[in-house]
Amino acid sequence: MNPVELIRKKRSGGGLTRAEIESFVGGYVSGKIPDYQMSAFLMAVYFKGMDPEETATLADVMLRSGKVVDLTSIAGRKVDKHSTGGVGDKVSVILAPMVAACGVPVPMISGRGLGHTGGTLDKLESIPGFRTNLTIDEYRDVILETGLVMIGQTPEIAPADRRMYALRDVTATVESIPLIAGSIMSKKLAEGIDALVLDIKTGNGAFMQSYEAAVDLATALVGIGTASGKETVGFITAMDQPLGMAIGNWCEIVESIECLRGRNVADLMEVTYVLGGAMVHLGGKAGNIPDGIAACRAAVWSGKAYEKFLQIVKRQGGDTSFLVDPAKYPKSTYVLDVRSATGGSVTGFDTMRLGALAGELGAGRRILDDVIDPKAGIILSKKIGDTVEKDELLAVVRTDRGEVAERIVREVLSCVTIGAAPAKRGSCIHATVDSTGVKPWTTPEAY
Amino acid sequence: MNPVELIRKKRSGGGLTRAEIESFVGGYVSGKIPDYQMSAFLMAVYFKGMDPEETATLADVMLRSGKVVDLTSIAGRKVDKHSTGGVGDKVSVILAPMVAACGVPVPMISGRGLGHTGGTLDKLESIPGFRTNLTIDEYRDVILETGLVMIGQTPEIAPADRRMYALRDVTATVESIPLIAGSIMSKKLAEGIDALVLDIKTGNGAFMQSYEAAVDLATALVGIGTASGKETVGFITAMDQPLGMAIGNWCEIVESIECLRGRNVADLMEVTYVLGGAMVHLGGKAGNIPDGIAACRAAVWSGKAYEKFLQIVKRQGGDTSFLVDPAKYPKSTYVLDVRSATGGSVTGFDTMRLGALAGELGAGRRILDDVIDPKAGIILSKKIGDTVEKDELLAVVRTDRGEVAERIVREVLSCVTIGAAPAKRGSCIHATVDSTGVKPWTTPEAY
Repeated sequence: MNPVELIRKKRSGGGLTRAEIESFVGGYVSGKIPDYQMSAFLMAVYFKGMDPEETATLADVMLRSGKVVDLTSIAGRKVDKHSTGGVGDKVSVILAPMVAACGVPVPMISGRGLGHTGGTLDKLESIPGFRTNLTIDEYRDVILETGLVMIGQTPEIAPADRRMYALRDVTATVESIPLIAGSIMSKKLAEGIDALVLDIKTGNGAFMQSYEAAVDLATALVGIGTASGKETVGFITAMDQPLGMAIGNWCEIVESIECLRGRNVADLMEVTYVLGGAMVHLGGKAGNIPDGIAACRAAVWSGKAYEKFLQIVKRQGGDTSFLVDPAKYPKSTYVLDVRSATGGSVTGFDTMRLGALAGELGAGRRILDDVIDPKAGIILSKKIGDTVEKDELLAVVRTDRGEVAERIVREVLSCVTIGAAPAKRGSCIHATVDSTGVKPWTTPEAY
Repeated sequence: MNPVELIRKKRSGGGLTRAEIESFVGGYVSGKIPDYQMSAFLMAVYFKGMDPEETATLADVMLRSGKVVDLTSIAGRKVDKHSTGGVGDKVSVILAPMVAACGVPVPMISGRGLGHTGGTLDKLESIPGFRTNLTIDEYRDVILETGLVMIGQTPEIAPADRRMYALRDVTATVESIPLIAGSIMSKKLAEGIDALVLDIKTGNGAFMQSYEAAVDLATALVGIGTASGKETVGFITAMDQPLGMAIGNWCEIVESIECLRGRNVADLMEVTYVLGGAMVHLGGKAGNIPDGIAACRAAVWSGKAYEKFLQIVKRQGGDTSFLVDPAKYPKSTYVLDVRSATGGSVTGFDTMRLGALAGELGAGRRILDDVIDPKAGIILSKKIGDTVEKDELLAVVRTDRGEVAERIVREVLSCVTIGAAPAKRGSCIHATVDSTGVKPWTTPEAY
């Protein structure tokens, strides 16, 4: 089909066949269809959407534009997790070794942070020496040896997605559920996994701010996974405040080590245990999710999860001496307190703004070529529901950028809402989504 | 403003300021904004539209991307006509010399045919020697000498429109009223005119097939003209059958000469006189449109309109001996009759298909580089309302393409609907649109 006719068909709300999607995406990857036709097509999809079958086909076609890693030689059901991204989201760093310690192989291909969100790769690379740019062969070797591997997207994986994502970023076509879902799943399904757990964030720090949009995206993602024969479970989780206390790269690694050693940061560890429990269950090492959660808790309490983390860091070239003694890590030039101007109870955060401010301190990038300062970040001392006295510490700001430090201290303060009435925090998990639909979720108590 | 943010703003239905439209279109013309961002923007405009102020600003910004011809040194109010395009539409060829013969200068920049429609330039160029590629200086000289000039778009005129139109053509973003209106008016307002008459076609041979869409486009066009300080009047006219009898290039010139000499092809001359009468009125040579129509009829009957045509053809390099003696023009290899299989009354035409078939005979082009055969075409002998006997001549097909001739004869036959009940033809002018709104129209009787 003529590319113009295909764009017109989608523009008019028509459904595309597999042959049409293959010819358009294939033509784009081979250079026969130029960027300007793809961007018009992406905008048409933004407005007219795609039905579940088209969306699954799009993911599959993008997946097949590259290599699908074959991990069948590795025993066990391989399970990965994907998060739609948030502020302070260091779940992967804790969860991957924890689940691997439960005997479920975790092949994890992660992304970099952009905009207000951090990226697992940037966090891992704040560990001196840690290599994320492994080849596919090294990737297979590492998971065979250690039971997990954590790398970045390689050129062989879903090249169609890489080019289409770069184009969406500069043509205001990112915020489309079928395009987001196709992009995520084309990469995840190329990892060689057997099952997948999804963390779909909702709230003022998430891409999908409304609960309804998060459910729609979760449903699309689970639909693609199921259509591809991979058992897929999603959780809609809270991103109405940063997850845990640290926002940055090295500071998030430190918080992750503490949690791997047994520190309980309530919201962070609820999400980590539930997602991890689901992975252990889908990996066949627990009969249900609550049993998987119990296995994860045992892996942390026994020290096995922490041991597994040290093992993978070492195997991927990282210097574990910094993990054992975080105090020897370089320090930021400016370490400034953010103190409350009033007493009361923390009732909310401008979460996305906090993520952007951490970026301005050096923790993030505005364009992909920006260099990150791993030391920079914001460490909260209060979360929603905590009481605060006047002049009490709310957060610490770390940066080498003296020219922005004082302003950002003021701006961080303005991101925290303090009210008279104490706010109550509930569970961070709003619902679960699998191939049978959306269901309520209750996290089992620890004891 | 960041181009991505500007695309996002339009995508979300936001109105763009003049500064935003200037920076985006200006950035595109200067090469700072790539095709892929413009095509995403155009698709967003397709879905979200533009309000009248944005549309007028777009036309103005595209206009100012190039040169605006200064015709203030030429006495009188300069008036042009634009048609949205149809099949057999040779109105410009008759009307320009007719209006100029009434003393109103007509600076006319026309386009080429593409798809099912013909273009005035292609028709004029079927006259041996006729040059349409004048420079802006020659353009000014010719109108000063003869009172009219008929050329093609020059590189200096609205370069933004030329690039944006080419991009729309390959990204399925042609069919958008603000984009169509901006494109048309950016070129027309660059001609140096004081007023403009618009022919917005509706029916099964028009781009705007529905009456409502034609009124929307007319309203947008008149709005831009008025906002630019140019008096603008539009007419919604019938394109439910080819206009006049001839569809092609040289054959349309011959029909035009006949009409300039006094032949009355009813639908063609109704449209020509009404549009011409409006031009004479807007040009200040008649107190109202009916008086302008009477002046146009007098210019034809007196022979002055025909004389003016001979003068402009000669001045632009054309060989007028072919106009005086059309029989000396080269003949098509194949001249085939289309005869009716049944008796009855002509009730309709598949007008767009007839235009496309004329193109297949050699009269049109599918891509801009195609070479046109000026001899090729279809000459109808029946129109809606005419009675037909079995085996009577419906049309003649002329082509050098022997391989398609017989098939096209059959297809032309299938484009004519013949019914038992006689069909009645009314006026070809459905309504008129000016800055005060849409009004009914009644064409004054000739005597």
